[in-house]
Amino acid sequence: MQTEDLIKQIEFIKEIDKLKFIQRRTKLFNSDRHENDAEHSWHLAMMAIILSGHSNVSIDVLKVVKMVLIHDIVEIDAGDTFIYDTVKNHINTNDERAAAERIFGLLPKEQAEELIAVWEEFEAGETDEAKFAKSMDRLEPLLQNVSNNGGTWKEYNVDYKKVYEKKQVIKNGSVSIWNYAEKLIEDSVTSGILQKK
Amino acid sequence: MQTEDLIKQIEFIKEIDKLKFIQRRTKLFNSDRHENDAEHSWHLAMMAIILSGHSNVSIDVLKVVKMVLIHDIVEIDAGDTFIYDTVKNHINTNDERAAAERIFGLLPKEQAEELIAVWEEFEAGETDEAKFAKSMDRLEPLLQNVSNNGGTWKEYNVDYKKVYEKKQVIKNGSVSIWNYAEKLIEDSVTSGILQKK
Repeated sequence: MQTEDLIKQIEFIKEIDKLKFIQRRTKLFNSDRHENDAEHSWHLAMMAIILSGHSNVSIDVLKVVKMVLIHDIVEIDAGDTFIYDTVKNHINTNDERAAAERIFGLLPKEQAEELIAVWEEFEAGETDEAKFAKSMDRLEPLLQNVSNNGGTWKEYNVDYKKVYEKKQVIKNGSVSIWNYAEKLIEDSVTSGILQKK
Repeated sequence: MQTEDLIKQIEFIKEIDKLKFIQRRTKLFNSDRHENDAEHSWHLAMMAIILSGHSNVSIDVLKVVKMVLIHDIVEIDAGDTFIYDTVKNHINTNDERAAAERIFGLLPKEQAEELIAVWEEFEAGETDEAKFAKSMDRLEPLLQNVSNNGGTWKEYNVDYKKVYEKKQVIKNGSVSIWNYAEKLIEDSVTSGILQKK
């Protein structure tokens, strides 16, 4: 690789530091401190590595790790959208697409195109790697909310039906992890930290 | 994989959340907020992916990413050791080894052994992957200190000679990144943010 590539790459590396300032709604395990996007992305990458053996099908783990490491970088420009937001859908908005073009566009052309493609693959959620990556993205806040006595479910009055609907995509990545997650959701109703209306 | 494996893996996933509370000496780019180990690990993983093309030799990128994602997990028990600490050497202490056994030991046996081996490989710094991973670990705080007008160099009175000595291991991973880093160090002397005694 050339020096001019390295200069661009360093600019990108500096820019993405801002992910550490993007605060999520969910809080750390057994904590009242909000998680930020960089911490969240690190945790998902660890989970992908640790849990890849539970994937429904054989997957390219490095691809999944890339997906989860970069999946929230667009939020540097577009901001975090709460998954249970009733106004704004968490979909590939124009804002997010423009953010991807600007931020990944700091990189050398070929690398920018590769990472934008990886991000779009994650967002589309159709490939085996994207399905597994999305399972990780749904599992972490579930574990956090259970550890925090209901967490964002209580804070934002989110009921069982909504949680079940959002979380069941875990099944597309891993049936065995979904079985675990489903039981956790049911147990949360039993213990009273999640309301069934 | 079995359900009993999943239970162990989830315990590990919960435990490593504590990495988000381990504060480093260095601060975020252009900021006075300290970085934590989870943020740092995420950033190194991104850097490894982005910069792998500059490695002196062909490397297994997933292995490097695993190394940097887990390299500080032992600090959950053993605490962070400042690289310019004059009393405690940043080497594989007994504390760190015990921490690795306890924390990775939460995982199913085979996975625990694999990750302990990856961590030890990183610490030894002898394989091509470990050399590149260590380059990343040295580069990030260099960039941060430059962005912060000297950062920990000024705060802890660390001079050019010490910085140069610690940073030159970057060369073992990538000569081209080292050329960039060396110039950054020399420029820091010129601009007065790093002292040559």
